[in-house]
Amino acid sequence: MSLEDFRRFRERMNERILAADNLEIRRFFALDSRAYDDGALPTRTKELLGLVASLVLRCDDCITYHLVRCAEEGVTDDELFETFSIGLIVGGSIVIPHLRRAVDRLDEIRSAT
Amino acid sequence: MSLEDFRRFRERMNERILAADNLEIRRFFALDSRAYDDGALPTRTKELLGLVASLVLRCDDCITYHLVRCAEEGVTDDELFETFSIGLIVGGSIVIPHLRRAVDRLDEIRSAT
Amino acid sequence: MSLEDFRRFRERMNERILAADNLEIRRFFALDSRAYDDGALPTRTKELLGLVASLVLRCDDCITYHLVRCAEEGVTDDELFETFSIGLIVGGSIVIPHLRRAVDRLDEIRSAT
Amino acid sequence: MSLEDFRRFRERMNERILAADNLEIRRFFALDSRAYDDGALPTRTKELLGLVASLVLRCDDCITYHLVRCAEEGVTDDELFETFSIGLIVGGSIVIPHLRRAVDRLDEIRSAT
Amino acid sequence: MSLEDFRRFRERMNERILAADNLEIRRFFALDSRAYDDGALPTRTKELLGLVASLVLRCDDCITYHLVRCAEEGVTDDELFETFSIGLIVGGSIVIPHLRRAVDRLDEIRSAT
Amino acid sequence: MSLEDFRRFRERMNERILAADNLEIRRFFALDSRAYDDGALPTRTKELLGLVASLVLRCDDCITYHLVRCAEEGVTDDELFETFSIGLIVGGSIVIPHLRRAVDRLDEIRSAT
Repeated sequence: MSLEDFRRFRERMNERILAADNLEIRRFFALDSRAYDDGALPTRTKELLGLVASLVLRCDDCITYHLVRCAEEGVTDDELFETFSIGLIVGGSIVIPHLRRAVDRLDEIRSAT
Repeated sequence: MSLEDFRRFRERMNERILAADNLEIRRFFALDSRAYDDGALPTRTKELLGLVASLVLRCDDCITYHLVRCAEEGVTDDELFETFSIGLIVGGSIVIPHLRRAVDRLDEIRSAT
Repeated sequence: MSLEDFRRFRERMNERILAADNLEIRRFFALDSRAYDDGALPTRTKELLGLVASLVLRCDDCITYHLVRCAEEGVTDDELFETFSIGLIVGGSIVIPHLRRAVDRLDEIRSAT
Repeated sequence: MSLEDFRRFRERMNERILAADNLEIRRFFALDSRAYDDGALPTRTKELLGLVASLVLRCDDCITYHLVRCAEEGVTDDELFETFSIGLIVGGSIVIPHLRRAVDRLDEIRSAT
Repeated sequence: MSLEDFRRFRERMNERILAADNLEIRRFFALDSRAYDDGALPTRTKELLGLVASLVLRCDDCITYHLVRCAEEGVTDDELFETFSIGLIVGGSIVIPHLRRAVDRLDEIRSAT
Repeated sequence: MSLEDFRRFRERMNERILAADNLEIRRFFALDSRAYDDGALPTRTKELLGLVASLVLRCDDCITYHLVRCAEEGVTDDELFETFSIGLIVGGSIVIPHLRRAVDRLDEIRSAT
């Protein structure tokens, strides 16, 4: 799925989910976006935290999302690969297929800019 | 993958697997389908249990299967979204991409009826 | 750890965590306790959902918490064992050590009443 | 917990669980013990499969159980450490605390013989 | 994705990742491929260990990779299905969708030979 | 287990494991400690990455280890609680029991200094 298709599906389904009459889900979504705001730690560091957590839990969509956000925050490739290396060593070789897709996505993000 | 393609692949591979000469796998499949029969808990509740377990373990195919069964058992959208909210809160934001696909699938199931 | 020690540690640390100046964590805790309130699904069913999710994710403390709540909601042993059987079949034999501790805890809960 | 205490708790709770009136759980337990019988693969190899699966899923009790069985099947320390190394590389550094307890348990098993 | 597409993507991205200037990732990749070399345990057994670990951790790409390697090592279908049965019983019904894809992939591998 | 007992067991078992004749495990341990060295990202940030990965993978010993290292690197409580909040939101309420033990351990670390 291209980055553009990912974005469109994500946006469409978020709207669909938030339109449903479930207060807990709406609050969770609000909480989820607030968690990465600047605080004692800057957004930039928090996005790296979100990225490594997504890597070790092996969620491709979450990895894509945080890679896009990291790129927007000006994170360099060297910083991303060091984050990848920690995710790989903590999470093991089972992370490798997700790492391949992550690097492929990163190249797509960089070339789209 | 459309719901129809999912169903066909599932059926074809189940037949293929059960045709292989492995008694343990055949017994596991039998046990798996019996587990959701009416008992002290009705099938309806057991399907919700299967759904929330599939959500927190983040298995799209298992979610699709239990959504289809829940729809057959007459579970309402409000009941499904409350089950989603528990899966989301127990399992965290890593569940969200699966929730998006689950709600998309639910819409497909409802419109197919 | 006895049920009483579990309760005391849980309460003490919840207070300690909520006293820390972190709004997101406080909101998450509030959201977590609201998620099991009566709604389209009754609290009783939601506690079974929380229990099966805790089983397949293999968290002993979460299992203990939901077993206590299920007992308070009048869930019977037969209903609990059917919930256990779904958790076991979905999550596999890796769940068995947690099931042993769950049943031991259930016996402690029943005898404490 | 000593190996002897582990064995006693395991045996007591297995009896307690099998005495409960739940056919699915009883069948699952029967299936679980049959799965390691000699077949196309010998029991010895199957116990190594059970051990590596327990390592990457990070279940100390399951690791202890399969270590005991491997020792009974005459698996050598070199074979066990190669199994550990695969579990470690597939599962990542998050496996290390379980590896420490596994090796400690292995030493207890070897010295008990 | 066909086996051929899988192989091409895997090879292309491995090259891309190893070309990046990150020593830890390069060392991890080297370590990962050495782990399955003949030792106290033969490569054949180690590939079965890698397969069952991939099954219970539910990684389709890792399963495909180890199935290809097992076929190269002359592992029979009966041996593979016994490995599948252990993965299924340890990991539970959540493994079933991955088992379906594994058997489909196995049929593709066998027919390609 | 007190922090001091944790340290002693960790050290003793690391020595025991590294003394075993397994090159892959020794290399993995070396790689694991190098991964947190200063690079494009400073050690301080990498320890936060290790901490959040340990939280969402729910490994108490790994959490303890990275909390000790974070304290040595001068990470503040506010920074730690923001890292906790991301781990909690990404990983869900199943993380809460580990968060309780993490905060209890943090208090032990701070009071030991």
